[in-house]
Amino acid sequence: MVGPKLQAFIPLFYLVWSDDLLTLKEFQTLATFIKNQDWLSQEEKEYLLSNIDRSNPPSRAIIDKWKEEIRNAILKNPSIASSYDVAKMLSENEAQIIDLKPYFLKIENDLGYLSEEVISTFKTTADTFTSKNNTLSQFDVPKLTAILDGNQVGVINKVKAVISRPEFAYEYGLDIATYRNRVYDWCKILAKENFGNKAYPKEYGGGNDIEAYFAIIETLSYHDLSLVIKFGVQFGLWGMSVYSLGTKKHYEKYLKDIGDLTLPGCFAMTETHHGSNVKGLETTATYNHKDQTFSIHTPHPKAQKEYIGNAAVHGQMATVFAKLIIDNHDYGVNAFIVPLRDSDGNVVKGVTIGDCGYKMGLNGVDNGTIRFDQVVIPKENMLDRFASVNDNGVFESPIPSDNRRFFTMLGTLVGGRIGIPRSALSAAKSGITIAIKYADKRRQFGPDGGSEVPILNYRIHQRRLFPHLATIYATHFGLQYLTRLFLEKTEEQIQEIEALAAGLKAYSTWSTTATLQECREACGGKGYLSENRIDNLKNDTEIYTTFEGDNTVLMQLVAKNRLSEFRKEFGKMNSLGMINYVFENAKTALTEKNPIVTRTTDATHLLDFEFHLQAFQYREKTILASAAKRIKRLIDEGLEPYDAFNVVQHHMIEVAQAYLERILLEQFQENISKVQDQAVQAVLKQLAQLFALSVIEKNKAWYLEEGYMESVKTKAIRKMVNQLCWEIRPNAVGLVDAFAIPDSCLAAPIVFNS
Amino acid sequence: MVGPKLQAFIPLFYLVWSDDLLTLKEFQTLATFIKNQDWLSQEEKEYLLSNIDRSNPPSRAIIDKWKEEIRNAILKNPSIASSYDVAKMLSENEAQIIDLKPYFLKIENDLGYLSEEVISTFKTTADTFTSKNNTLSQFDVPKLTAILDGNQVGVINKVKAVISRPEFAYEYGLDIATYRNRVYDWCKILAKENFGNKAYPKEYGGGNDIEAYFAIIETLSYHDLSLVIKFGVQFGLWGMSVYSLGTKKHYEKYLKDIGDLTLPGCFAMTETHHGSNVKGLETTATYNHKDQTFSIHTPHPKAQKEYIGNAAVHGQMATVFAKLIIDNHDYGVNAFIVPLRDSDGNVVKGVTIGDCGYKMGLNGVDNGTIRFDQVVIPKENMLDRFASVNDNGVFESPIPSDNRRFFTMLGTLVGGRIGIPRSALSAAKSGITIAIKYADKRRQFGPDGGSEVPILNYRIHQRRLFPHLATIYATHFGLQYLTRLFLEKTEEQIQEIEALAAGLKAYSTWSTTATLQECREACGGKGYLSENRIDNLKNDTEIYTTFEGDNTVLMQLVAKNRLSEFRKEFGKMNSLGMINYVFENAKTALTEKNPIVTRTTDATHLLDFEFHLQAFQYREKTILASAAKRIKRLIDEGLEPYDAFNVVQHHMIEVAQAYLERILLEQFQENISKVQDQAVQAVLKQLAQLFALSVIEKNKAWYLEEGYMESVKTKAIRKMVNQLCWEIRPNAVGLVDAFAIPDSCLAAPIVFNS
Repeated sequence: MVGPKLQAFIPLFYLVWSDDLLTLKEFQTLATFIKNQDWLSQEEKEYLLSNIDRSNPPSRAIIDKWKEEIRNAILKNPSIASSYDVAKMLSENEAQIIDLKPYFLKIENDLGYLSEEVISTFKTTADTFTSKNNTLSQFDVPKLTAILDGNQVGVINKVKAVISRPEFAYEYGLDIATYRNRVYDWCKILAKENFGNKAYPKEYGGGNDIEAYFAIIETLSYHDLSLVIKFGVQFGLWGMSVYSLGTKKHYEKYLKDIGDLTLPGCFAMTETHHGSNVKGLETTATYNHKDQTFSIHTPHPKAQKEYIGNAAVHGQMATVFAKLIIDNHDYGVNAFIVPLRDSDGNVVKGVTIGDCGYKMGLNGVDNGTIRFDQVVIPKENMLDRFASVNDNGVFESPIPSDNRRFFTMLGTLVGGRIGIPRSALSAAKSGITIAIKYADKRRQFGPDGGSEVPILNYRIHQRRLFPHLATIYATHFGLQYLTRLFLEKTEEQIQEIEALAAGLKAYSTWSTTATLQECREACGGKGYLSENRIDNLKNDTEIYTTFEGDNTVLMQLVAKNRLSEFRKEFGKMNSLGMINYVFENAKTALTEKNPIVTRTTDATHLLDFEFHLQAFQYREKTILASAAKRIKRLIDEGLEPYDAFNVVQHHMIEVAQAYLERILLEQFQENISKVQDQAVQAVLKQLAQLFALSVIEKNKAWYLEEGYMESVKTKAIRKMVNQLCWEIRPNAVGLVDAFAIPDSCLAAPIVFNS
Repeated sequence: MVGPKLQAFIPLFYLVWSDDLLTLKEFQTLATFIKNQDWLSQEEKEYLLSNIDRSNPPSRAIIDKWKEEIRNAILKNPSIASSYDVAKMLSENEAQIIDLKPYFLKIENDLGYLSEEVISTFKTTADTFTSKNNTLSQFDVPKLTAILDGNQVGVINKVKAVISRPEFAYEYGLDIATYRNRVYDWCKILAKENFGNKAYPKEYGGGNDIEAYFAIIETLSYHDLSLVIKFGVQFGLWGMSVYSLGTKKHYEKYLKDIGDLTLPGCFAMTETHHGSNVKGLETTATYNHKDQTFSIHTPHPKAQKEYIGNAAVHGQMATVFAKLIIDNHDYGVNAFIVPLRDSDGNVVKGVTIGDCGYKMGLNGVDNGTIRFDQVVIPKENMLDRFASVNDNGVFESPIPSDNRRFFTMLGTLVGGRIGIPRSALSAAKSGITIAIKYADKRRQFGPDGGSEVPILNYRIHQRRLFPHLATIYATHFGLQYLTRLFLEKTEEQIQEIEALAAGLKAYSTWSTTATLQECREACGGKGYLSENRIDNLKNDTEIYTTFEGDNTVLMQLVAKNRLSEFRKEFGKMNSLGMINYVFENAKTALTEKNPIVTRTTDATHLLDFEFHLQAFQYREKTILASAAKRIKRLIDEGLEPYDAFNVVQHHMIEVAQAYLERILLEQFQENISKVQDQAVQAVLKQLAQLFALSVIEKNKAWYLEEGYMESVKTKAIRKMVNQLCWEIRPNAVGLVDAFAIPDSCLAAPIVFNS
């Protein structure tokens, strides 16, 4: 019936009827095209038009016939690249068709698709390389685990064994009272194992091993985080405050009972109206000369202690921070041991306890409020390591400045700012493990004619997860470094260590929040079910960015510390000219070395550790100098320093970030250089490169503004980040297996039976 | 006792003893300095050194005396700017001191602080401008509310009145069973008010007003979001699937009962193994010729329906999506009404229902799994608007292509992608209202000598919240626009509207997640307490980025739609040369107009609406063209299109984002131009400027890479963003009050009694 030349239109017919996007307009476009072909007879045109009559669509049979003919044409000639080529074949190289090539190509375009896409639907593309990039660990996982655990492997494995016991199995949807008691019971088990008192002196039943204590916190954090926080409140905050701020008489009286959890207690610092600004807290401890006692008092409701862990139900005593008043003179904030409940749990007279109730997470921890109405305690209950009241009722202290004494006291509590980020990191490890292992199994979509592909093979999915994985590894080594510094600290280093701890606490908890948010979304609906744990991991760690110091406030402190370091380094910083000088120096010093570098884009250079570290150092130095410069200028312009610092707050955060990221990269690279095993070193190297380049990419606008890189380079870096993700893909599962999180802790069904 | 010249050292003494940061090193520095002053006698040196002997600190009395002397000096001469000036005064202009000026300045620096900071602690700086920038609404709030509510004010206020009734009061920590029934009862109340059937035809008891239905969803979203989703499942997904995919016989049989909630039902599309790739779902509906029935069957466990709202407890029927099989031929996915429970709630034979259990949020919604074991339903249960089986058991459809029919069916359900983003937006409005009103009251830190300052006065806090506030306003107008388009849609627009709905669903839900995350952190500990609602707002909306289409998948669809629009626009896109041509055109077209613009930084220009829109359009066009270019090149290089699209996935997301942001800005600006009231227009203008500039700032690396802006300009934009935040501050509370969220819905105690 229809001659070969008409066959040429079959691809177009098939297209308009099969394509799921075409609308009226496309049908009209095609109709017009046909009408305009004056080499066609009227009846030929009518025949063709009858095939695209929307009021009278062809039967499935006919469409299937078209499809067959197209497929056969393609199978006969695999070199076919456009539907015009098909048209040509079907029309047996009809001369007019060949002349019409441009028109056929145009109509294909007007119909809004790329020929290749249509043709490809006929080729079986099951063997796309996207389908092939699957899990294939290229290194020995246990070797990497050994590197991560280091010298703490013993205690780590001991803790893992304990929390893997059946009595530690998770249970969801417990009512809050049951949950709180469950967590309390878990803590008792841990106390029996002597995990709680690990950091206390041997003479008080402890293990005298603070390093192990941190490893315990970190490992426990693979389990329920309410347990970790309850544990940290009792043995860390309550116990260590007695140990750090008190003296022998307090150790002898309390430390053993705290360590075996026969004396549950609290750390009562924060007040409703004073969280970050602790110096401003208003609870008073007034000295009574007549009977050598203190009266602990809450002057008004907003001065009540708030969010106090262990307070709502279990706490029997508390380290209470209050302003010491003697003869109406305020001697600043000091710490006192105040009883809350008797051993039967009855609240003592003068104390009023409230319950913080339901929280976003950590509902296994009994946070509460505490109010004191002239509660009288004996003189010896003052934690008197840094200040005391002598028998004549006279204040005594080796540190005359209230300010300085206060910060010295806080300084002794810096341990909390090492435990929290290490706990946060474990939570991030759990989350990324769940997300990556699920994405490795979960298949969705795939090439035409091929089976569905693991979603971890999709570039966007890799980009969502792998930079976080790299950051987790970088942070791991950074926190190891911080811990070592803390253990070996000299008086000279104290400030720097405090700043670094504050900074890494903020950095690590923020990236944990970001990581878990991404993991939740990356796991789709499954990531929303509590059984898969992203829920609790995210909601429990959510408050980590706030407690132990609000992250934003901490970052400001870190930046101020960097500024004063900076000033010490280059004297005479009071003169703006001099700052400018130093500033320009910092800039040129590194760039002038190699002017071409701003344009270099070859892989060797982009993957070079030295290039990475230099870029980080350059950013750290320059951004710090420019902050100093801005502040100085603002003050010279007559601004109050308070206003000046407010104006540059955003800048200050970047100062702190650049400093922290430089430390993380430095430590990551240094640890890699020490790795013996080639394969392990190779995969860690890729992670370090991904970490470095994604941080640079995040800050690329800044590098461009500074002229440190040109756009050709930042674009090359973006491509390299994609490439690294692609190359890390086969090792991704191995890299999370290396965390060696116990299955019973991971627990998420999507990890084990997807 | 001590001569005036020694007085000069008092500022230094005071410093070392009062500063809370100095360590051993600083004491040594000062000691060395003193020892090196050969103009001092030996005993003078010894006296001075005795004042910085750490083993024998001065008494508080002495420190206080020093402090007094310094204060007096400063009061006598307010022009004093450095502690050297103080030294000079105290030494009564001792000649040697004046000669020593550089040494004094140096030692101050070596001690690591800026003189100004020390001096300022002696001046009362209570009147910093940071302290003064407080709430002061400069516009008439109700007028703005009227603009936001528009023609829907009637139904909006009606809904607000209902959800403000006592029976709608929140209760936290309900067990899941109670919570689910509470939400169900709430839905019954709303049904009685004829909110549920608002969109259905009048003849079936409806209000025939889809616009009002969307306004209802949006307003309900100020309340518990489990309520909104349960409501949406019943009246939107279940009811509208019957209405959109069924025919008269189904309307008559079901629509009224669905609308008054006597027939609770489900929308059973998603399967465990097929969420995003719905076309791949495996449930079958096999036609039985003998008795003209269908057998609905779940071939294997992973093909069970999952996350189905209303399934676990209340649903009696479901619209089930299944592959239609006739005589072993697969006719693609179609929809069928299948009974799940009888009216007494007993599950029907062949149906197995599971409970999804605890979720991160929305625990008031009974999501469940459904399995079918050869469940037989009558032929008329097929929703046959787009396809049917005739009495001879032959498949019939006006749309022969299975693909196309499927997407046409889905297209009729696009309403869900308008309701969800509008619901998400309301949640964001609640969160930002809580965070801003709290930050306006919460005071922490302050200038020396001044009282504490509202944290909303801190630049960093403004930067955390205000860009989100601006985005919320932009999204509000964007979703209004989408709704109008949807209501007035012509067949030609369908695809674009579907793409826009998909895109705005993703954009709006992602920014809601980001906004609420920021709000949680910005509210500190209070933001973690469930009573303040950020908890539920965040966790309930968390899944919005996944359901109704995973955001990442949706953004890919939007980008693909943009690409085909692009191809239609400029024919012959199959030739790379042509794409390049268009690409270069898109670039130059806008830049060549004004070459200097890349460096312009004056405020008038930076705040100019036209500049903003041009920058957005430029980004949209260029990034789209470059994506087309990359894909084309990759395919020419021999990549399978499937691989090519995988390589550019990340780029595709940006294509979609640029498109959506351009639409939002366009709509925001257009709506502002229509505002009559000057004051309201002024404040909205600032918000639109903040929205535009923070988006540009977010993408500034790209603008720099493209050479569309130079660094001098991007830096100026960063400053301008800070400035706009600062200027919006006094109106911030007014801007959230304009949302007019009922107090009973807002509920957060920190909003009302901080």
